[in-house]
Amino acid sequence: MTHHLITGGAGFIGANLATSLLKDGHRVLAIDDLSRGRIETIHHLTNNPNFDFRQADCADRDALDAAIGEAECITDVWHMAANSDIPAGIADPRIDLHQTFMTTFAVLEVMKAREIPNLHFASSSAIYGDFGETMIHEDIGPLLPISNYGAMKLASEAQIRAAVEAFLRRADIFRFPNVIGVPATHGVILDFVHKLKNTPEELQVLGNGTQQKAYLHVDDLVRAMRHIAEIPGRYQLFNIGPTDDGVTVRMIAETVRDVASPSASIIFGEESRGWVGDVPRFRYSVDRLINTGWEPSLSSQEAVQRAVAEIVAQEMGR
Amino acid sequence: MTHHLITGGAGFIGANLATSLLKDGHRVLAIDDLSRGRIETIHHLTNNPNFDFRQADCADRDALDAAIGEAECITDVWHMAANSDIPAGIADPRIDLHQTFMTTFAVLEVMKAREIPNLHFASSSAIYGDFGETMIHEDIGPLLPISNYGAMKLASEAQIRAAVEAFLRRADIFRFPNVIGVPATHGVILDFVHKLKNTPEELQVLGNGTQQKAYLHVDDLVRAMRHIAEIPGRYQLFNIGPTDDGVTVRMIAETVRDVASPSASIIFGEESRGWVGDVPRFRYSVDRLINTGWEPSLSSQEAVQRAVAEIVAQEMGR
Repeated sequence: MTHHLITGGAGFIGANLATSLLKDGHRVLAIDDLSRGRIETIHHLTNNPNFDFRQADCADRDALDAAIGEAECITDVWHMAANSDIPAGIADPRIDLHQTFMTTFAVLEVMKAREIPNLHFASSSAIYGDFGETMIHEDIGPLLPISNYGAMKLASEAQIRAAVEAFLRRADIFRFPNVIGVPATHGVILDFVHKLKNTPEELQVLGNGTQQKAYLHVDDLVRAMRHIAEIPGRYQLFNIGPTDDGVTVRMIAETVRDVASPSASIIFGEESRGWVGDVPRFRYSVDRLINTGWEPSLSSQEAVQRAVAEIVAQEMGR
Repeated sequence: MTHHLITGGAGFIGANLATSLLKDGHRVLAIDDLSRGRIETIHHLTNNPNFDFRQADCADRDALDAAIGEAECITDVWHMAANSDIPAGIADPRIDLHQTFMTTFAVLEVMKAREIPNLHFASSSAIYGDFGETMIHEDIGPLLPISNYGAMKLASEAQIRAAVEAFLRRADIFRFPNVIGVPATHGVILDFVHKLKNTPEELQVLGNGTQQKAYLHVDDLVRAMRHIAEIPGRYQLFNIGPTDDGVTVRMIAETVRDVASPSASIIFGEESRGWVGDVPRFRYSVDRLINTGWEPSLSSQEAVQRAVAEIVAQEMGR
């Protein structure tokens, strides 16, 4: 049993990670400012004696330190706190500055002061930018993020790398694309389900539906992160994702429609990008991770199908 | 004539850039918080009717905006403001956060609000980290900065790239290694000159003297930046440096000794790195820039020889 701190611990990924760590008998302290995470997300954990939750802004060093308080023997921080609303961050760069970068900065300050040795960081495929048809592996360059979210994830990686040089014993960097599953708090599937709840006859889609992306189910993501955390090393940098090239927005829209509102018609836009900062096409190499013995249990298509069923159940109670 | 804003305009590079732009008849507004830059640096410019100086913290959006005030028709920002004391930034990461990254963040906010279209940014070879014997070109990866300074320069690049996607018309990123010349405010040559002023018989050197780096004279840097600013494009990313592999710290120490205090003995340390965050060896490709028709006028060795003469004259009046 080791004691793990999860920032963004009431968020989509944080809550799934907490459940997984607790299942294996570890202690977990989840911290979340509940600006996007929801307390219901971790309701099923609150009776577990190995689980604690505290509300705090992880970008505020003193508040974060106070929230950790007397918690003893924390060896690992899983830093999952970030802004998850990419268009919001494009409209106001201070959102990603605060929620995506300053959380990382403050987490590192607290780890240094408390001598917590190991950091596991949820980065993003958004740090790469638009490589078109080129297969994106971990060592590719130049890194040209096109959203403030991607920029602040790259800034976080950079600050973590410097901290490894100065005081951290170990850091893992997880770069992953869209992650889906429940409890869903944001994302294209939830967006489509909400639209169909409001207008059951019609699903309006931003962009022309040809954007193709890889999707990873959160169960596979948590399994991959915990797998990487066991690989010996000082600084581990891994793409995480399915091995396929992904599915189109059209496929997702159709899958949601078929489950949530089969008679709805789907209306596409004309742009190849849904919004500023959205990369239209994306080829993502996970060879490095596959070579360590991990493999995804679901393809992008299977992940979408399972997540659509889960999210429709969550939102529509069926 | 165009109107240029230089942040860090009283710093070493900013002052040389201002002189160059004014010489060609442009208007220049220099802003500097004078925490590291010195007002004497731009004393020779203050009678020029095309030159204005205002003191402000460029990391404070409102203060920066107020300092620009009614200045009209600024088309270009040369963002040179940054922490230049790398060891200080390693001791306290908030220094590089504020002076190296938040300056960039605030500059971008002000450019967006005022619709200033063109940004020219002094990045750094420190964004690359330690590639050993591998030749470092602009598209290499992964980017693993080992100092907070390098991390916050990379964070700045990332935020600028996202801003190009959202609102900037153009950005140039200049990645350069050690720049030398006068008015020197920091750096290895000035450090050695100061040591020999204090103890003329002996020069103590951090590290074993085998660290080898490329050095660029500030005159060549300013010429390269202005050359790149004329190349058509939306986002220009260039290494700037000499074409050689650099000179050793031993060579620099001997050159300073020979000019400043010929009878002094030089005492080396034992480490191959002088300090945390110092990369021992470094091979730097400037092929992309050379292919545009620019070339350095001085090698690393010639740049060191000229800068040593200039800095000894500045500090010792001879």
